[in-house]
Parts: sequence; C-alpha cells; structure tokens
Amino acid sequence: MSGSTGPQADATRHPREHLTVTPSPEAFRRARADGNERLRGSGSLFESFFALDGAAYAPGALPVSVKELLGLVVSVMKDCEECVYYHLERCGEERVARDQVLEALQIALIGGGSVTIPLLRRAVSYMEKLPNLGDGKA
Amino acid sequence: MSGSTGPQADATRHPREHLTVTPSPEAFRRARADGNERLRGSGSLFESFFALDGAAYAPGALPVSVKELLGLVVSVMKDCEECVYYHLERCGEERVARDQVLEALQIALIGGGSVTIPLLRRAVSYMEKLPNLGDGKA
Amino acid sequence: MSGSTGPQADATRHPREHLTVTPSPEAFRRARADGNERLRGSGSLFESFFALDGAAYAPGALPVSVKELLGLVVSVMKDCEECVYYHLERCGEERVARDQVLEALQIALIGGGSVTIPLLRRAVSYMEKLPNLGDGKA
Amino acid sequence: MSGSTGPQADATRHPREHLTVTPSPEAFRRARADGNERLRGSGSLFESFFALDGAAYAPGALPVSVKELLGLVVSVMKDCEECVYYHLERCGEERVARDQVLEALQIALIGGGSVTIPLLRRAVSYMEKLPNLGDGKA
Amino acid sequence: MSGSTGPQADATRHPREHLTVTPSPEAFRRARADGNERLRGSGSLFESFFALDGAAYAPGALPVSVKELLGLVVSVMKDCEECVYYHLERCGEERVARDQVLEALQIALIGGGSVTIPLLRRAVSYMEKLPNLGDGKA
Amino acid sequence: MSGSTGPQADATRHPREHLTVTPSPEAFRRARADGNERLRGSGSLFESFFALDGAAYAPGALPVSVKELLGLVVSVMKDCEECVYYHLERCGEERVARDQVLEALQIALIGGGSVTIPLLRRAVSYMEKLPNLGDGKA
Repeated sequence: MSGSTGPQADATRHPREHLTVTPSPEAFRRARADGNERLRGSGSLFESFFALDGAAYAPGALPVSVKELLGLVVSVMKDCEECVYYHLERCGEERVARDQVLEALQIALIGGGSVTIPLLRRAVSYMEKLPNLGDGKA
Repeated sequence: MSGSTGPQADATRHPREHLTVTPSPEAFRRARADGNERLRGSGSLFESFFALDGAAYAPGALPVSVKELLGLVVSVMKDCEECVYYHLERCGEERVARDQVLEALQIALIGGGSVTIPLLRRAVSYMEKLPNLGDGKA
Repeated sequence: MSGSTGPQADATRHPREHLTVTPSPEAFRRARADGNERLRGSGSLFESFFALDGAAYAPGALPVSVKELLGLVVSVMKDCEECVYYHLERCGEERVARDQVLEALQIALIGGGSVTIPLLRRAVSYMEKLPNLGDGKA
Repeated sequence: MSGSTGPQADATRHPREHLTVTPSPEAFRRARADGNERLRGSGSLFESFFALDGAAYAPGALPVSVKELLGLVVSVMKDCEECVYYHLERCGEERVARDQVLEALQIALIGGGSVTIPLLRRAVSYMEKLPNLGDGKA
Repeated sequence: MSGSTGPQADATRHPREHLTVTPSPEAFRRARADGNERLRGSGSLFESFFALDGAAYAPGALPVSVKELLGLVVSVMKDCEECVYYHLERCGEERVARDQVLEALQIALIGGGSVTIPLLRRAVSYMEKLPNLGDGKA
Repeated sequence: MSGSTGPQADATRHPREHLTVTPSPEAFRRARADGNERLRGSGSLFESFFALDGAAYAPGALPVSVKELLGLVVSVMKDCEECVYYHLERCGEERVARDQVLEALQIALIGGGSVTIPLLRRAVSYMEKLPNLGDGKA
C-alpha cells in the first residue's frame, strides 16, 4: 500500500480521484502541527482550548489508551477525518492492539450507521501505515 | 433527588418545565423495553440490527466496560438522550467507576463542545440514581 | 396503547418519565399549526421558506407519496421528532402502506445507526395512532 | 400564551403532548443553574470548560450582543433547545432588538433547513416571555 | 467536463484546488471496492453490517428505485460524499430519471439547508458522468 | 504560504497528502460559481433557494457584516468547508476585522468542540490569502 502513496505514483492523478487514498503519517503530522501552530498564534483562547483538550486526555481514572479509543469514536461520529488519523496515531503510540481499535470502530459503525463507512475505509487504510498498532495492549 | 421525581411532586408541572429532570431508571427501562419490542415486531431487519448491536458490545479484544464507555460517548456526540441513559445503566452493571464515566463525559465535552452540556447535565443527574456506579472498576 | 395517552392516565406522571410516549395526532397537529402561524407572523422570510418547502413536496417527476417518504428519512437523519410525526401523517393521507413506511425507516436505521432507535421507537408508536396508514399504496 | 403555561393548565396533560410548549424563563433558569452546579462539582475539567466558555463570550473585538447572536445560531445548528433559551435570555439582557434576533434565526433556517423549524417555533414562543427583547439594539 | 478529469489535465493542480471536481465513476468504483474489501477483511461484524445494508436495499414493499432515492437523501443529510456517488450510480443502474433524482436532491436541500449546497454541486457534476441517468423511470 | 500552493509545487503530491492546504481564492471562486450555475440550471427550486439565501443575508435590522459572521459560524457548525471559505471572502468584502472573525471562530470552537479544529486550521490558513480581511470593522 505504501508504494502507491509515493509522490511519483500520484503525480498524474487529480484531486478527489482516489477518495480512499490516505496521507502518509509523516506528511499528516507535519501539516497538522503547522496548522495548530497557526491556530495557537491566532488568539489565546485557541491556546487555552488546546490545553484543556490535553488535560482531558491525560492519565486519570481511565488509562490513556482507553481515552484515545474514546477520542477515536468521537471523531468517527463527527466525521472528522484528521481527528481519526490523529487518534489512530496516538493509539499506536499507546500500543493499543489492532483488534482493539477495530472493535472500537465497529461500535462507531453500529452507532453511526453506514454513513460512517467511507471514513472507516480510510481509517483501516491509515492503520496499515502505523507500525506500532497491533503489537500492544490497551 | 429521587424525591423530586415522584409522580406527586410533578403532577402539577407542565411538559418541558424542568428540562433537567430525568426519568426514574425503572420507568425508563420499562418504556425502552416496550418500544424495542414494538420495533422488533415491525420487521426482521430491526431484529437483525439489534442482534448486530449486541454483537458489537460483546466481550472481545476490549472488555465490556470499555465498550460501554465507547457507547456512551457515541451517544453524547449524537445527542441521544435515551442512549446515554442506557449506556450509563450498563456502565453501572459493569461496575465502571463514577470517575471513569465522568472522564469519558469530559472527552465528549471537549470533543463536541458546549452544545453537549444540556445532555451532560442530564447524564450526571441520572448517574445519581444508579447505585452501582462508583464502586467498580473499568 | 392509546388508552395510556389520555390526559387522565398521564396527569400523575412527570415530564420525561415516559420517553417513548408520543402525542395524540390531534394535539400535535394543533400545536404545530399554532407554532407555524407564530413563525409566519415573525418575518416574510419564514413565509417564503414555507412556500418553498411546499413546492419541494408538490407532485412532479416523483409522486407525492415517494416525496413524503424522502421527507421522513430526512427527518430521522436529523433527529427531528416533530418532522417525523408530520411526515408520518402525510404518508397516511397519501395512503402509503405501513410496510412501505417501515422499509423507509429501516433504510434510515442502517444509514444513521443505533442512535436513531429512540426516534424510531416513537415513530412506530405514533404510526399506531394513524388509521389511514397501512391500507394504501405508495 | 403565558396563561397556558401555568401549572394548573397543564396538570392534566401528558408528557410530549404539546411539543411547542416552552418552559417559563424562571423555571428554566433555576433548572439550568442547578444542573450546571452539579456538573461543576463533577470534576475540574467541567469547571475549566465553563470558564473558557465565559471567556469566548466576553467583550472583545466583537460586542457581546453580536457574540450572543453567534451563540444563538450555533445552538440552532446543533439543535440545542436549552442553549437556544439561554442565548435568547442573554440577547434580552444585552438589549438586542427582537428583529435582530429574528434575522439571526432566519440565517439559521436558511443554513440548516426545515429540520430547524420545530426549534425555531419554540424559540419564537420563548421570546414572547422575555420582556427586554425588542426594545434594544445590537 | 469529462475532458478535464483526465490524469494529464490535473497533473499540475494541487489537492483541494478544485473543490467541485468529482472523481471518474470508474476510479471511484475501484477505490470503493478496494476499501470495502479491506473493511470486510477486518472483522466479521463489518461483513455482517454490509449484509444488513444489502438487505435494507433489496426489493420489498418499496421498489429498489425508491430505496436508492431514500439512500441518496440519507447520504446528503449526513454529508457523505462517497455515499452520494454510490447511490447516484445505483439510481442510474435502476434507470431512475434525472428529474426524479433532482427532486430528491431538492427535498434534501430544503430539509438540510444551504450547508448541503457544496455536496449538491458535486452530485449534479457527478450525474453528468452517468450515462444511464435520465432515460429511465423510478 | 502562497508559494507552496502553486501548481508546480504540488504537481508531485498526491490527493489528501496535505490536508491543511487550502485552495487559492481565485480558483475557489471560479469552481463555486461554475457549480452554482450548474445547480441553478437543474431546476427552478434551486434558483428559488438561492434567492431566499440572498434575502437572508441582505441588510436589515442587522448589518451585513454581522450576518456574514453568523453565516460563518453556521458553516463551521455544519463542517461545511466551502461555506467557510465563502463567508470568509464575504467578511473580507465587508471589511470585517481579522480579530472579529477570529472571535467568531472561537465561539464556534467552544460551541462545537475539538472536532471543529481541522476546519478552523483551514479557515485561518485561507484568511491569510484574503487581503481585505484585517483592515476593516464589523
């Protein structure tokens, strides 16, 4: 899969041609960081919101791995593609097992219905690019 | 709190007067069961959907307690009041700790914003009526 | 069921106690008409919007019965309880068969997921109060 | 209208009978304050979120009256009934003119479509109970 | 239009440059099939959900053509771009007339408001690429 | 930023690689106008809806600048990327100050939660391309 996402392979394709093509984790991470930096520089309320978001996902009565799975289903329910990629990455970093992520996505599917399927297709495609997913434990 | 939810106390109040009043768990459970029975009797696809929903929440790579927390945030994100009550009850049955439920609700709040607050008010009110919540572990 | 929805039966119950109780069609029709009258009197743009809404549901390339089923699933997808009651009534007036309405609701369920179930419970309950539903044809 | 919302008038009606009946501002304010108190007592993140919400609506480059109108359309777009009542009250306190509120609601209607109409019916009904609305200026 | 969607024509354009450009039906079909295959291979619950989805759209009390129009408005209401393309293709296969599809989209527009317009622009653009749409009957 | 959005720079990138890349205002305007033309030609109801939309944003009790800010938060709440770009452009034409737009976006963020962040990243990026934003007054 990763072979088809290189720049060369896609240079001759047009926007929206391959709706299930997902970004490379590296490019996504960089673009997300740039955008967040820009938001943070646009007013202190944005900065405060990011801090509160960070606090919600900090370890507490629930382990971080469970919180990231909660963030993942929140993201699917709101059709937030970039949020899904972010929480998948975080799941990988927290060594959540691939099967655990898939069960969380199944709960999102049954809860949100078939309109979640295009985003789930992308989620499963993106998971293939995350080496840490699958060998861990929530 | 439970005193204010008895029939006598509310007989002289009008619909929607107290938007934060929540049903008694017993009445809710009965009404929900009746409604589901009616749906199940309305076509085999409804029945099949309920079966699939049950399968998604069965124990697997994730423990049932985590799945119920996932269902809870799914419900808040879609503003589904009755779904929230249901998953809170299931959390109680699975002995999820009150602090764990609250952390899941905080993730829903930060993810879905201030428009989730009215439902969160009801969720916290309903939690007070569930004796098993708070003494367990996710 | 209709016996339990009379004023006497419910006078001693409190708001939100019975989340699956649905209004009587007569009371709903009156309240809806009153509210729409109030909106219409609040600015010509409201009036124009109602006119456009009426035009969208007028007979055309699609028969009115199909349009009402479309309006019904639109309403379920947006969790609009009153819209659902209205389109169910219109389906009854257009002599849509009960099985046809149920199949439309099943498409809404599979499309929108389990979070639509509370509204579908109410829809099926409300359908029992509509005498014309079930003997017609879409 | 206010006559029909007294306790006596509604004691014999059942829940959800009058879907367009709106609460009295006093009862709503009290119930909302109670619920928020309960949330605030349920974890510091709730408290922090309320503080951030307050900061977003404080005077700044935009006057508070415009911010309350923005909060009003946010609430309609997310079908948040209690949020709508709250922002209508705040509009009244900020002496926003009734016609200005109605124009904001019209933008919500054209933006969100006919599924917003049931909430707009309630909004216009609730506005009749707010004495300060209509004599001011945004 | 189809001329501008070839690989050569778009090689020098950047992502998101042309937000109204739609994929070619062939490329979309292939990418969708690949993604669904990947989902199906990710757990039996996904497979079961697809089967239930298929059952909901099978001929019954409603003809398949009407069910596809229902699926189309479900998709617009949930802003599901790929779902819209899929149901448009199915409408073409079922020989639904172009005017019938447009009337269904108009009901989605009036129901969901101006925020549906960007997706409707893409829907109408995609319809131009479907040869079977327009000569049939629902 | 504008350097990275030229055709040459992106010719070797694949779709969805840079999720925070935003279109050039010129290309967006052209594509939007083309799509609207196509919709207008697809039935008189589309034309009527556009006229009603125009009426809602015309000067009235509220100045046009405030109405455009209302349209902007409507768009963020419904995750409508193209609507956001359009209302940002209109804000620029109405000489709304950059700080005023940012405060409106902050109200959308607090109201709609962290799932609005990806769209807010794009909004702030797009604002950098609008020369008139920032020197005016709402």
